[in-house]
Amino acid sequence: MSKSGVFITFEGGEGCGKTSQINMLAKFLSGRGCDYTITREPGGTAISEKIRDLLLNAKEGENMSPKTEMLLFAAARAQHVDELIRPALKSGKFVISDRFIDSTYAYQGAARSLGFGLAKTVNDIAIAECLPDLTVLLDLDVVAGLNRAGKRDSGNSDRMGSQKIEFYEKVRLEYLRLAKENSERFLVIDASKSIEEIAGEISKCVKERFNV
Amino acid sequence: MSKSGVFITFEGGEGCGKTSQINMLAKFLSGRGCDYTITREPGGTAISEKIRDLLLNAKEGENMSPKTEMLLFAAARAQHVDELIRPALKSGKFVISDRFIDSTYAYQGAARSLGFGLAKTVNDIAIAECLPDLTVLLDLDVVAGLNRAGKRDSGNSDRMGSQKIEFYEKVRLEYLRLAKENSERFLVIDASKSIEEIAGEISKCVKERFNV
Repeated sequence: MSKSGVFITFEGGEGCGKTSQINMLAKFLSGRGCDYTITREPGGTAISEKIRDLLLNAKEGENMSPKTEMLLFAAARAQHVDELIRPALKSGKFVISDRFIDSTYAYQGAARSLGFGLAKTVNDIAIAECLPDLTVLLDLDVVAGLNRAGKRDSGNSDRMGSQKIEFYEKVRLEYLRLAKENSERFLVIDASKSIEEIAGEISKCVKERFNV
Repeated sequence: MSKSGVFITFEGGEGCGKTSQINMLAKFLSGRGCDYTITREPGGTAISEKIRDLLLNAKEGENMSPKTEMLLFAAARAQHVDELIRPALKSGKFVISDRFIDSTYAYQGAARSLGFGLAKTVNDIAIAECLPDLTVLLDLDVVAGLNRAGKRDSGNSDRMGSQKIEFYEKVRLEYLRLAKENSERFLVIDASKSIEEIAGEISKCVKERFNV
């Protein structure tokens, strides 16, 4: 693939602070005169956003199978890569995506137990070698993250089912395993640090790696 | 997979007469006291029907990539197999589906040029070995079929773009290739015969193969 832009993805569990850090990276890039596009998964194109709706709405009531879920994420991703990410990279832009392939490994592959192999087969079909140049993993203790995301009853951590915590622990462990296996691509950050500290680490890395 | 039912799929191009034949087979099975379920692809479950809507609506205007299309069909199929087909077979029913895996080979693999290999990888993920016991291919000349389906301007065959005919020729050729490669699973029928003649051939085959 001929591309001249830079593809950066953000990954992490609930409440890890991806949105704030994506906005701060965008500000940094803007200040250095770099052209960028912010996008998200599932989503980023009209068709992919419709698939997003289907994924989010189906969660209540209907019993979507994990494999269906994974294939829908892949369908949204294929469209996202073809219609938005690849053209933006080709035109020399920075593309910053809130979630990408590693979410599939962590959520569907590990936490929903479909396995890494199956997730990789499906991811490979969807992205056709359009791999991120850098993946920022915002790593955070699961309970702290769920508290931040407001997904726990306020102040009463015991009332959350242990099943939910177990699910997110699997997500976190898989993210950390992926980061270790792909250390050249990943930047792992302790997301319990201050927003400014984290933003500083990310912009330093982007500056060094991509001569911004 | 432990199953005791019989899984029959109907395949063929535009205007080949699948719907009529499915209804006549149902009548035949009913007359022999067999329990059956009629279903279709994409569709058959609430989630799969939503994916069907997305596939059909996206065709006008938006530029859905062939790979996205294939992955959406696969997502709908995975849900269809898990939620409807496999349970119905397990309970001993005949399951008759209007389209299944071979449509993906013919339309996305061949006509949209994604290739058989990629289509097989995705199909295998979606069905997890839930293969049809019998696939009825209603084979028909492409132009005759398009005329029957009302997809040509009445009586004026020259006004249809040759591109469309070429597309459906690829579909037809791939169906015939699949039937040859999987002769134990396929029953190929000349769909230019009368409805009654065709129904007779199908019920004879079903009677012999499955001791109905």
